[in-house]
Amino acid sequence: MIYPASLEKLINYYKKLPGIGEKNAERLALSTLNFKDEDIEGFATALKDVKNKIRKCSICGHLSEEEICPICSDESRNHNIICVIEDYKSVFSFEKVGNYHGVYHVLNGLISPADNIGPDNINLASLVKRVEKLKNPELILALKSTVEGETTTLYIKKIFEKKNVMISRLSYGIPMGAEIDYLDIITLDKALEDRKKISE
Amino acid sequence: MIYPASLEKLINYYKKLPGIGEKNAERLALSTLNFKDEDIEGFATALKDVKNKIRKCSICGHLSEEEICPICSDESRNHNIICVIEDYKSVFSFEKVGNYHGVYHVLNGLISPADNIGPDNINLASLVKRVEKLKNPELILALKSTVEGETTTLYIKKIFEKKNVMISRLSYGIPMGAEIDYLDIITLDKALEDRKKISE
Repeated sequence: MIYPASLEKLINYYKKLPGIGEKNAERLALSTLNFKDEDIEGFATALKDVKNKIRKCSICGHLSEEEICPICSDESRNHNIICVIEDYKSVFSFEKVGNYHGVYHVLNGLISPADNIGPDNINLASLVKRVEKLKNPELILALKSTVEGETTTLYIKKIFEKKNVMISRLSYGIPMGAEIDYLDIITLDKALEDRKKISE
Repeated sequence: MIYPASLEKLINYYKKLPGIGEKNAERLALSTLNFKDEDIEGFATALKDVKNKIRKCSICGHLSEEEICPICSDESRNHNIICVIEDYKSVFSFEKVGNYHGVYHVLNGLISPADNIGPDNINLASLVKRVEKLKNPELILALKSTVEGETTTLYIKKIFEKKNVMISRLSYGIPMGAEIDYLDIITLDKALEDRKKISE
């Protein structure tokens, strides 16, 4: 064994993190040696806290330290607009943009017959219940443009289409700053389909 | 605050690691949520253990969980050959190569007048004491080829040159697989200077 046992162990834990290989894990573990004592304590506590304190919001399914997440309990937000997303990472992305003032519903998955994931295996039933309680509900489906994403989008649309729910999806199109020449044909086709009238 | 408090804290600790930026720290922290409970416990314990258990070997200055490191207490190694290195990372590199069977001496720094680091500020006095106890000592100076490295190499050479100590340094030269055309001129010059007779 080249490394002292405790260092070897720490290297192995760093290796469990995504994108961290052998060489990088060694570097991280060695750098940990130079951490201040209080930082080591804090780091170890933070690891445990994240696992112990964070659970799912009982309304939207997003990560939260409380029974109801800060977004669902924020009365200044519009609770009639629900953005339906695949996982909590999307919530963080939307919140970083900071322009969305509705609430969310985290599906924790997408319908995928190939993987035996049906509508009952994702957080859909609670969405139906939520929407039923609202007066003029609006759903924004923000799911990715894969087979699973499209299937789930269509499924949700079917559930709500006769229930007087306004349903939209995110627009497809050209990413900002991208060269049109280098765009894949499907994206270009979608951008053409989703074209928007230029207002004066 | 976009992230739950405990997640935000963990992200900040990951950001303290070398080469881990904001985006990457978020990714690592979120992936930690999917760790098994025992892995979180183990990770937290490993962090503390590395800081609490690891100290410097009282002979060579290398990292060790014991008073004397496994290398210094290994009787099958040649204790008359001491490889002098800047820091413990070099020990791990040499041990990975696996072809060196002498022992080490970790300087924990290099002489650098510009940074006010003199011979007394690095782990040199104990090297002199170690060498005095040996019969036919051999020193291999494995320091980097910077001004500080060269200065330290020359200084050590001066200390020992009249004391019947065989002193060598690592050879400079072309890295394996490198294209000669693309080599910097200093390396090429050193490779010429350190040229080796081709034995039959």
